[in-house]
Amino acid sequence: MGTDDARKRLTSARVATLATAGRSGETDLVPITFAVSGNRLVSVVDHKPKTTTRLRRLENIVGNPRVAVLAHGYDEDWDLLWWVRVRGDARTVTSGRGHRDAVRSLVAKYAQLVDPPPTGSVIIVEIDEWLGWSARRLHEG
Amino acid sequence: MGTDDARKRLTSARVATLATAGRSGETDLVPITFAVSGNRLVSVVDHKPKTTTRLRRLENIVGNPRVAVLAHGYDEDWDLLWWVRVRGDARTVTSGRGHRDAVRSLVAKYAQLVDPPPTGSVIIVEIDEWLGWSARRLHEG
Repeated sequence: MGTDDARKRLTSARVATLATAGRSGETDLVPITFAVSGNRLVSVVDHKPKTTTRLRRLENIVGNPRVAVLAHGYDEDWDLLWWVRVRGDARTVTSGRGHRDAVRSLVAKYAQLVDPPPTGSVIIVEIDEWLGWSARRLHEG
Repeated sequence: MGTDDARKRLTSARVATLATAGRSGETDLVPITFAVSGNRLVSVVDHKPKTTTRLRRLENIVGNPRVAVLAHGYDEDWDLLWWVRVRGDARTVTSGRGHRDAVRSLVAKYAQLVDPPPTGSVIIVEIDEWLGWSARRLHEG
């Protein structure tokens, strides 16, 4: 899968998995809702009930900004399997233009976030590595 | 979500994300099919077309056996969101009883693997940490 296909797949995916490592090097994994524009991926700590571990990702990013995000499609027809993995450097913002822009793009993608819009910390990932795989593409290609 | 619930959710999930880190510390993420019995999770490098990066997970495990696996459910009704994350030490086996038992449990779970059964390397994770989260459970609890 080329980068253009990978970008389309990731952008339209509704959920992905964020991996953060922190200083300890032990990987934390959590599903995220997110929005992609260009090489920027944004996510927000939503206003759902959360455990302390749901905030581990923020601490980890401070300690080690390098993150990975995976979106994938599962189907019992394994010829339809695909995944897209991106990597980049992440930062967290709690206010300002970066926060506003991120919330706007998230609200545009997810009706669930419209009212009230999220106010929590935003994670911004500057993607510098795209990798995509598709069973069908490899079969056909 | 308690460990019993987490175990049920993970065991019945059809796909999960495996995170391996390797010596470099850069996280590799890949979707896996898998089977769980007790505290043991097994997966196999299947016979689908694969890129070299799909084998990165095996190299990473040799360099750093600590892995994490996340399964989750997504639904547009966010009250139905859940995830289960486990951690453990992984090893890879290419033959012997561990390989046979793993293949047997994978074939029992996935009709797609029945004919021919997979012959590739098996990843065995001894889970020592279970963590589960469910939006509904937190709302109700």
